[in-house]
Order: sequence, then structure tokens, then C-alpha cells
Amino acid sequence: MTGLFVTFEGGDGVGKSTQARLLEEWLVDAGRTVVRTREPGGTEVGNLIRDIVLHHRGEVAPRAEALLYAADRAHHIASVVRPALARGEVVIQDRYLDSSVAYQGAGRVLDATEVRDLSLWATEGLLPDLTVLLDLDHDAARLRLDADDKPFDRLEAEKAEFHERVREAFLALAAAEPERFLVLDASRAPEDLAAAVRDRIETLLTSGV
Amino acid sequence: MTGLFVTFEGGDGVGKSTQARLLEEWLVDAGRTVVRTREPGGTEVGNLIRDIVLHHRGEVAPRAEALLYAADRAHHIASVVRPALARGEVVIQDRYLDSSVAYQGAGRVLDATEVRDLSLWATEGLLPDLTVLLDLDHDAARLRLDADDKPFDRLEAEKAEFHERVREAFLALAAAEPERFLVLDASRAPEDLAAAVRDRIETLLTSGV
Repeated sequence: MTGLFVTFEGGDGVGKSTQARLLEEWLVDAGRTVVRTREPGGTEVGNLIRDIVLHHRGEVAPRAEALLYAADRAHHIASVVRPALARGEVVIQDRYLDSSVAYQGAGRVLDATEVRDLSLWATEGLLPDLTVLLDLDHDAARLRLDADDKPFDRLEAEKAEFHERVREAFLALAAAEPERFLVLDASRAPEDLAAAVRDRIETLLTSGV
Repeated sequence: MTGLFVTFEGGDGVGKSTQARLLEEWLVDAGRTVVRTREPGGTEVGNLIRDIVLHHRGEVAPRAEALLYAADRAHHIASVVRPALARGEVVIQDRYLDSSVAYQGAGRVLDATEVRDLSLWATEGLLPDLTVLLDLDHDAARLRLDADDKPFDRLEAEKAEFHERVREAFLALAAAEPERFLVLDASRAPEDLAAAVRDRIETLLTSGV
């Protein structure tokens, strides 16, 4: 058996952890060894790096912050992910380079293509075998918010606009690499989503990945 | 007055600190405000980054280490060097991107051109107005060592070979950018070297830099 690298992407609260857990359970039942991990902070070095970024928020120069995240990624991929893949295990990771690109692109501070190139240099070009994008329809979320009759202030409007830009960036990435991405409507029932993920994983496993 | 960015490069023990100090004294006497700094560790964030690299030596993946140094550089240039230059001050820095390129090139782990590109991305392309390369003739150093009649073991031979590769890398960088570099024979008397540096600085200052 050879390794398989699966990442889950999407905004906060779309259900990435739930889907990662359901996929892990199914794979373990099928006899596979699974490594579940996340960035930033999947290693001791990564935790130290995260401390720097978090404890100096607002004072770390934007490029320094991007380079720190890339350093965390480089160490995490070299010391955790690549060894697991070499042992033939399945790595399920919460967020990877697509998150960096989508959030940087939406934040409009750094060039998204440069952030992608930085990640690819950091990881010696490691791309997932499968990236599951859990896509949440923000209009639906807003409708629910409006139904609660809560006031929708300017800050919330800006937040909604930012998250819509992140969502559009994720969808653009998925459109550019349809072979790697599986885009799912995150408003569907968790078991439905898990079944769709399993279908794609089974296809990958039987095709000899 | 506009700012001036001067870096000192060369192997360990060639006299970079002495020359930086002599230049600073002369500039301060001439009424300029001088910022003397170094990498890594010129900022609080830089010190935290250096702690990670030093305390995990041998365990940090090579690309992660390069990215950590680049993050330190990005933060240092954005928060210390660029503001000083914008105030019209002179920044005198011990080691900069040429050291990264020369040592990485000599170590042969990472591609030197990629390391240079990483530094230039980190600093938004900031190059010094003047880089003083203090070049030490290693053959002379070896001759002195032999004169002491000390045994020259394999480790010392490897070290000598490594330092020779670093030296050649520095000289190649200087040859590629003769306008930016001033190459000096570090075996000369410190006051002679300081006079040569002052000559070049005066030319830069009178040319309106």
C-alpha cells in the first residue's frame, strides 16, 4: 500500500473536523493506519512558531508572518506528513496550502500566487491526492441570521464580505484543479457528505494510489 | 539627507565588527545618525525565532530553517531598517542576504538562487547601497596554522574546505554586482581598511545617496 494525503478545506464552522473524524473512522475500520493532523502547530517547532505569531499579533510584519507559517508547514510536512506517506499511511489534514492562498487572497495584503509559491517551495511541491472543499452558502447563513431578527451592523457586513471573498477564492482554486478537489455543499447532512468523501477515496484507493 | 544602507560580509573573525564600529564612529563625528544592527536577532521577534533555530538544531527541517531566517529578516527589515532609512539615517548591518546565499551555497543543502529569491521576497527587494566584503586569504591562515606545528586533522581539513567554499561564494557574489560590493583584503591593517571604506562612503554621500 502507498500513502494517501487528504486535506479538508473551507471556512470556519463548515464541518471540517467532523468530516475528518468520520473519514478516519471508516479508514481505520478498513484496516488503514491514519495520521490526523493540522496546521499550524502539528509539531513542537510548529507550536513555538504559532506562539510567535499569536503573541505578537499586529506587530509581526505581514511577510514575516507568511514566512513563519511557511516554516511551520515546511517542518510539519518534512517531519510528520512525508514520513507517514512513505510508511504507506493515510494522512488526513485540517487545512493546507489552499487555506493560505484563499485567506491571503481575500485579505489582499500579499499576492496569492506568491503565497502559493512559498508554500510549494516549503514543502518541495507536495500537493494532496485529494482536497475536500466544504463549501458553505453564505447567503443561507445570512438568511438564518436575519431570521433571528438580530441587527446586522457594519462590522458584521465587513466580516460577511471577507468570508464571501474567502469562499470565492476557495471555489476558484477548486475550479483550477478539478482533479484534486472534491467540492461539497456543507449544508448537506454530515452522513451524506461523509458518503461522498468515501466514494472519492474508494476510487483513489482502487486506482492504486 | 536620504538614508544609506551598508552591510559587512565575510567569514567569522575577519573583522566585520571592528570595521562596523570604526565606520559608525566616523559617521557620528560627521553628524549622521547611525543604526547598527545584525541578523539574526535584531528584534524581539527575531530573538524568539533564533531561539527556535538554535534550541532545535539538527531537528528543524532545512527549508523550515531557511524560512525562519527569512521571517526574521522580513520582520527586521520592515520594523528596523526601512524606518531608519526613511528617517534619513545610516544603517550599518553585520551580515545580510549575501551571507545566507554564500553559506547555503557552500553547505550545498539548498539552492543558493532560491535562498536569494526568498530573501528578496522577504525584504521586498531591499539591497544595500554598499556591501563591504572582508576577504580573508585562507591559504595564509593555513600557513600560520602549519607554522604552529599543530596536527591538521580530517575535521579541520573539512572545515577549511567549507570555509574556502564560503569565501569563493562571497567572491562570486561580489563579481556579479561590482557596483554594490567593495572587496577588501582582510589581512590589511584595520585603519587601512577603515580608510578604504570611508573613501567609498564619501563617494556615495557626495553622489547624493
